Amino acid sequence: MRISFIGAGRVAHHLVHALKQHHQIIQIYSQGFVHAQKLATEVKAEAVHTFAELSAEIDVLIIAVSDSAISDVIQHVHTYLPNTLIVHTSGSTDIEKLTKVHARAGVFYPLQTFSLEREIDWYSTPLFIEATHLTDLNTLLQLANELSQRVYQYNSAQRLSLHLAAVFACNFSNYCYDMAKQIVDAKQVDFSLLYPLIIETAQKALQAEPRNMQTGPAMRGDQNIIAMHAQMLKQDQRPDLEAVYHLLSEQILKRHQS
Amino acid sequence: MRISFIGAGRVAHHLVHALKQHHQIIQIYSQGFVHAQKLATEVKAEAVHTFAELSAEIDVLIIAVSDSAISDVIQHVHTYLPNTLIVHTSGSTDIEKLTKVHARAGVFYPLQTFSLEREIDWYSTPLFIEATHLTDLNTLLQLANELSQRVYQYNSAQRLSLHLAAVFACNFSNYCYDMAKQIVDAKQVDFSLLYPLIIETAQKALQAEPRNMQTGPAMRGDQNIIAMHAQMLKQDQRPDLEAVYHLLSEQILKRHQS
Repeated sequence: MRISFIGAGRVAHHLVHALKQHHQIIQIYSQGFVHAQKLATEVKAEAVHTFAELSAEIDVLIIAVSDSAISDVIQHVHTYLPNTLIVHTSGSTDIEKLTKVHARAGVFYPLQTFSLEREIDWYSTPLFIEATHLTDLNTLLQLANELSQRVYQYNSAQRLSLHLAAVFACNFSNYCYDMAKQIVDAKQVDFSLLYPLIIETAQKALQAEPRNMQTGPAMRGDQNIIAMHAQMLKQDQRPDLEAVYHLLSEQILKRHQS
Repeated sequence: MRISFIGAGRVAHHLVHALKQHHQIIQIYSQGFVHAQKLATEVKAEAVHTFAELSAEIDVLIIAVSDSAISDVIQHVHTYLPNTLIVHTSGSTDIEKLTKVHARAGVFYPLQTFSLEREIDWYSTPLFIEATHLTDLNTLLQLANELSQRVYQYNSAQRLSLHLAAVFACNFSNYCYDMAKQIVDAKQVDFSLLYPLIIETAQKALQAEPRNMQTGPAMRGDQNIIAMHAQMLKQDQRPDLEAVYHLLSEQILKRHQS
């Protein structure tokens, strides 16, 4: 297939390189032209400066931009490619955002966290697809099945609940690591001491219900330790960490005493 | 060495089995006698009903009970074993809690999360030891080095900051998984779809600073998605999850826009 991209960020980067294995990447547009240029060079595609330069001689256009930019992008791109299959890659954006402007629309959402520094294991990454036209759904199915063994046809409401859960499981747990690092950094203690704990905690969640794997002072209802930890954060003048400590401890306590 | 235990919970269970490889477990006391009995049977030790039955013919007594019970335990045990090396296994309990009652005191703190369902990789688990007497420190060093390649002599203040960080990195991240599971469960969506994301997020934290690995709507400052997610949680009548979503999103936003 012939595939073009809007966006040259982390998701676009990983998708472009993955799809390149079996398909031809034709053009890449990005608001920051240098980013489009860099990514295009890597996969022998063309970087374009404007939507007007986008070729209609493609099978699918993939919009991989931040959710807030999708509406703007589809309105402009639609005028140049009114009959092309156009998909977005967002978990929380309803397919309607595309269809109210553009009829041949779809979604191609990989449930993963993307960083430029790390390779993606596409084979195990769940992919959620959706399309307005059956033939387009089959096109997306083919692309998805080449990448992953876990492909699902989800509607926008189901996808949205997954994305919301992903914010808790990924974005918020990463912020917990970030807060932990700030705590040890302040005492010149090496963050890598926490690595085995971080990995074990994640692996436990894959083996049994996280609720049953909960440990720590709040789960045990140990008010003395909770008060001591809160006091430490107050002394260190970290009201942000103190607020998180109080809220999460309180909720864990409640959840394990009911 | 000859080692006895107070406590038969998760930490005691794993420590007893690990130390059993090279040493003799003599006696085990637990408030719930059946727990002591079960663990004692597994390692051919004796379960005892009272502190008065504890034999002084041992090299070390390990107190592996909840932090809140340590003070009580040391006061009672001291009267029967006034000259024995007695250590606790707590991250947040100062060695002073022992020394103000009992002179030959120590700490043997494994930085890990313990569940009965999972084996502990002791070799990579950091162990933090402390003792009032040099010869006792050497005893603990020997025990620790047999178990782990990562043994550290930390004082109680350093250990406390590590334990506080561990609450964020482990207990709170597990609660984030727990919240994620509640969200997908409510929509009959399979929690296992989030497994690759959970593991990738944890592995990223071991490769680079969690701050630089942060992703998600709050990091991108995407107020529309944040408002939509909050609205979903409100509609689903989950004020607990809504409160967490608001607080953590706000802090992530602030951290990544400064």
